[in-house]
Amino acid sequence: MTNRVYINEVGLRDGLQNQPNPVSTESKLKLADALIAAGIRQLEAVSFVNPKAVPQMADGAQVLAGLPTIADLNVAALVPNMKGYERAKAEGVKSVAVVLASTDTFNLRNLNMTLEQTKATCQQVIAQAKQDGIFVRGYVSGAIACPYDGTTPVDLVHKLTQDLIEFGADEISIADTIGAGNPQQINDILGPLVQQYGADIFNLHLHDTRGQALAMAWAGITQGVRRFDSSIGGLGGCPFAPGASGNVATEDLVYMLQESGFETGIDLQGLRNAVIVAEQATGQSLGGSVVQWMKSQELRKQKNQSPCI
Amino acid sequence: MTNRVYINEVGLRDGLQNQPNPVSTESKLKLADALIAAGIRQLEAVSFVNPKAVPQMADGAQVLAGLPTIADLNVAALVPNMKGYERAKAEGVKSVAVVLASTDTFNLRNLNMTLEQTKATCQQVIAQAKQDGIFVRGYVSGAIACPYDGTTPVDLVHKLTQDLIEFGADEISIADTIGAGNPQQINDILGPLVQQYGADIFNLHLHDTRGQALAMAWAGITQGVRRFDSSIGGLGGCPFAPGASGNVATEDLVYMLQESGFETGIDLQGLRNAVIVAEQATGQSLGGSVVQWMKSQELRKQKNQSPCI
Repeated sequence: MTNRVYINEVGLRDGLQNQPNPVSTESKLKLADALIAAGIRQLEAVSFVNPKAVPQMADGAQVLAGLPTIADLNVAALVPNMKGYERAKAEGVKSVAVVLASTDTFNLRNLNMTLEQTKATCQQVIAQAKQDGIFVRGYVSGAIACPYDGTTPVDLVHKLTQDLIEFGADEISIADTIGAGNPQQINDILGPLVQQYGADIFNLHLHDTRGQALAMAWAGITQGVRRFDSSIGGLGGCPFAPGASGNVATEDLVYMLQESGFETGIDLQGLRNAVIVAEQATGQSLGGSVVQWMKSQELRKQKNQSPCI
Repeated sequence: MTNRVYINEVGLRDGLQNQPNPVSTESKLKLADALIAAGIRQLEAVSFVNPKAVPQMADGAQVLAGLPTIADLNVAALVPNMKGYERAKAEGVKSVAVVLASTDTFNLRNLNMTLEQTKATCQQVIAQAKQDGIFVRGYVSGAIACPYDGTTPVDLVHKLTQDLIEFGADEISIADTIGAGNPQQINDILGPLVQQYGADIFNLHLHDTRGQALAMAWAGITQGVRRFDSSIGGLGGCPFAPGASGNVATEDLVYMLQESGFETGIDLQGLRNAVIVAEQATGQSLGGSVVQWMKSQELRKQKNQSPCI
């Protein structure tokens, strides 16, 4: 089993899409620069969705145009349908992500399509992307629970994953979109999938709403998964609910993995700096547990106190 | 492997010992009642240390006397030496805990003894307790890192564990006293120990300083460990450093384990109530991730908003 882990930073997309205050293109690009400086090489940077529905993502083309040109930087765009795909392709994107949610309700609320309609759309986008030589990742969204219909049966997750793989998806992200999961579910979902397809095509997209994300990521590691989404400072979630966290914080995940002997190519102090940039961009106080700990150590240093044990 | 997990609540001892404001005996007993009502049946309730050094623990005898008499309630006292042991025994305690820290510096700062002196003290207390028919648990404290001397070698943890077992300890708690660990270290420490002694005598005592506690607990679960310490609301830690968390929150641990199919006999809503009692007792805002999530849901309910996804 390899010790290399690939972190896909989704803060610019999943983290910013629900922000209550507008975040300027310039701020987004500053954040991207800080993330790249920290060693991030996979960025889900934009989403080509309806700008009326998600105004925070309306400047996707400008964000893509403003990103630095770095040979090993992988930039992806989320595309909900063919229209979004064509916009992403026109901007020269080499990697796209499609989203297949686990229930009719969730697909209808997100994309105004039933599950079957979304599946057909995914099939169409994936086929076109393969023809165009564009990498496609398929999200199985609500893979643990649907926010409207409750717990998602494991068999259904397996079936939707299989569908996306058969359509030609290069990578599958099992997404606990609302942070409702536990580590045993990761074993139950990933175990059979890894046995059938190998671990390399799977990614875990975890939210930390109930503090379970790192334990679930560790369960993923034990299943052989080496690809994870995360969001700088834990950016994201529901901005109107205090305590409802967003994606697992990149710094928490990177800390756990690096301390456990895995290589991510990412520098923790660089992530600390990126959290500061993200705080400036959003006007929020951010940071997962590791940054909260770093902040407390910084404060003690300022006060000339010894590090707190 | 059994699905039953034993949670040892240490909030009354480890959680309260460093509180900046005095907590009355009455408040402690109210908290104990709330914890017992939630289904907690193992309480490390008091510590018979020097009351001048740790004034918050000066009322140990009164706390013990005030606890309800429940047949299956296991109440333990931490005892640093023979003097503490004799005080605990005089109060009729059926279970004590001794502490062996991993370095000279840590033992000297905690107990004013070198590692070898502490080891000799542990041996003496354990021998006496066995003679008196009292259950003894040995903490290997600073098992991941010493707050003064840095990382603890795994071999040393194995050696100290072996010593305590040879002295006659009934249970060993591997304690990441400062929350410096990662899940791989749990595998490295527990793997060989479980192979040699079986999993049943081991407990994990984790702090959540850097957000790693649940992932480490899950690593413990995969090694067969079924005994964990935790503290209601994450009570504890260094009260003078914002963001420096205490013990892993009981509610976070119980949530993870129960959702993952393990039985703890503990009710989550009961723990939510106990957090309120702990907040009243300490004047602090408390709660691990799960209680923060429950608080946000309660707030939305008050405002007649639908649960936040």
